Amino acid sequence: MTQKIRVGIVGYGNLGRGVEKAIKQNSDFELKAVFSRRDPEGVSSEAKAVHISELDSYKEQIDVLILCGGSATDLPEQGPALAGLFHTVDSFDTHAKIPSYYESVDASARKGGKISVISTGWDPGLFSLNRLLGEAVLPEGNEYTFWGKGVSQGHSDAIRRVAGVKNGVQYTIPREEAVQRVRSGENPELSTRDKHLRECYIVAEEGADQAAIETEIKEMPNYFADYDTVVNFISEEELKRDHSNMPHGGTVLRSGRTGENSKQIIEFGLKLDSNPEFTASVLVAYARAAFKLGQAGDAGAKTVFDIPFGLLSPKSPEQLRKELL
Amino acid sequence: MTQKIRVGIVGYGNLGRGVEKAIKQNSDFELKAVFSRRDPEGVSSEAKAVHISELDSYKEQIDVLILCGGSATDLPEQGPALAGLFHTVDSFDTHAKIPSYYESVDASARKGGKISVISTGWDPGLFSLNRLLGEAVLPEGNEYTFWGKGVSQGHSDAIRRVAGVKNGVQYTIPREEAVQRVRSGENPELSTRDKHLRECYIVAEEGADQAAIETEIKEMPNYFADYDTVVNFISEEELKRDHSNMPHGGTVLRSGRTGENSKQIIEFGLKLDSNPEFTASVLVAYARAAFKLGQAGDAGAKTVFDIPFGLLSPKSPEQLRKELL
Repeated sequence: MTQKIRVGIVGYGNLGRGVEKAIKQNSDFELKAVFSRRDPEGVSSEAKAVHISELDSYKEQIDVLILCGGSATDLPEQGPALAGLFHTVDSFDTHAKIPSYYESVDASARKGGKISVISTGWDPGLFSLNRLLGEAVLPEGNEYTFWGKGVSQGHSDAIRRVAGVKNGVQYTIPREEAVQRVRSGENPELSTRDKHLRECYIVAEEGADQAAIETEIKEMPNYFADYDTVVNFISEEELKRDHSNMPHGGTVLRSGRTGENSKQIIEFGLKLDSNPEFTASVLVAYARAAFKLGQAGDAGAKTVFDIPFGLLSPKSPEQLRKELL
Repeated sequence: MTQKIRVGIVGYGNLGRGVEKAIKQNSDFELKAVFSRRDPEGVSSEAKAVHISELDSYKEQIDVLILCGGSATDLPEQGPALAGLFHTVDSFDTHAKIPSYYESVDASARKGGKISVISTGWDPGLFSLNRLLGEAVLPEGNEYTFWGKGVSQGHSDAIRRVAGVKNGVQYTIPREEAVQRVRSGENPELSTRDKHLRECYIVAEEGADQAAIETEIKEMPNYFADYDTVVNFISEEELKRDHSNMPHGGTVLRSGRTGENSKQIIEFGLKLDSNPEFTASVLVAYARAAFKLGQAGDAGAKTVFDIPFGLLSPKSPEQLRKELL
């Protein structure tokens, strides 16, 4: 038995808890500790909880750190800081800032002789891989990404900021007729409104003007104005009972042509009961790849585009060729 | 402008013709010649046709050879022989013999300092990648591969060997109800018969006993006995008119569980008007990867599991991170 890959989790929200669960499904991993900014006493992890300030002293005990903080403020700081000390994996997902994030993590990782896999998960991540694959295999064609049905955290936050709204959840829903048109090879031009619908479940404060809330949401620029939006008012109990899960998913379609106009369709889809648990499972597979790349003496920042799928598996190359090719 | 990747095609059947078309869609490639065992006069390629015996003299003019021969007799000989002279890409698809084919191509490629990408296309190839991905990300789960609707060459050959059959085509058809059960996360146990249906279109010889033909096909061991098979008799004109295309496709599904029983489904599907043109398009993308790996000084046999997706694209890593991640 080879030695297990020793992992630390940084940040213990939904994603960090998902990583803890995912590690239990992968017998080649061992969770050493969960690092949090909170008082370790208050962290409910099964693994040992440690204050984040003590991370440095774990350098010899941990092979890969899985960074589970948010992309807005946590990762831009933690990513470059920790990449010099440990192999790291993260799910940095602010698309526009990926190039500069890559540069700063890469510099730090190279200096420390470590591997940092950035921006993995499913989008960015598995969806990005399929966008690349579609374009490389079918250069004459169009790419369509549909998200949902699933909860959008950003849009849910936006509706909760509207005056009179006590609580709320927003679902992004792909329009089935648009997906079908793409699947048929029609190569349609689709507007923002054609592709997705937005559905809100709102708990209003007592006495609030529901009509005013609905109007404000539907007309909110960037978030809702370009979409058809449905607003439903429900009770706090209904929200808790029916809208506490975090399902998500989506589809990346490439619709291309080859030869004398042969239609060729590539489709990659996810249907997820739990978005954070799935993202966590992807992070763990890429943690394995980070460890293997590190063992091979490589260093620097990597994205899903740089990593062969073989490294995601616990199986040997011989086994993979025999069993899965 | 960097220099184009100079390609040679070996074998000019459906796949070789598909590669010729695919190269026209990729401006970073240049087709130098088509090599065939036939008299070059009789080869209808737009590119220069050359007898295969002259291949050696093209060593300095060609970067990557795309081997378009069959897996039964052509590739086992050509693969190892050519891997020492050129970077090569092939679609060797006899699953059981892949490990030994890999070994012999690898030895030859290493000796010559060349890259050989073996067994690419869509199965083996893109489907294999998705089987690996599903297993690595969702270790607790089941994998289901459905093929079709599409023409199976092996089964079509088998029915054409039946006495009284003049011509015929066999379609492998996935059972929609089985696909739906998997998509729903049910994790069903599916027998061979549950997963696929076989449909045959037969042109019988004049005066042949159609009932006897039907019985012989349906009871044929390995090919049909374990399936529900539908046999249709049609005329030669109908066969030509309605069954001359080579559509294919299929679906790889991974149905897994994470955490406290969250259902997670990953699906990868292809819907192809032309099977050989699509396979050819995949070969060309992997020819680009072979070239880049060779430029980087790597050598030996590779499979899709060993090659990062970034190498499939003509874009730079910076561009890919900015545009597609």
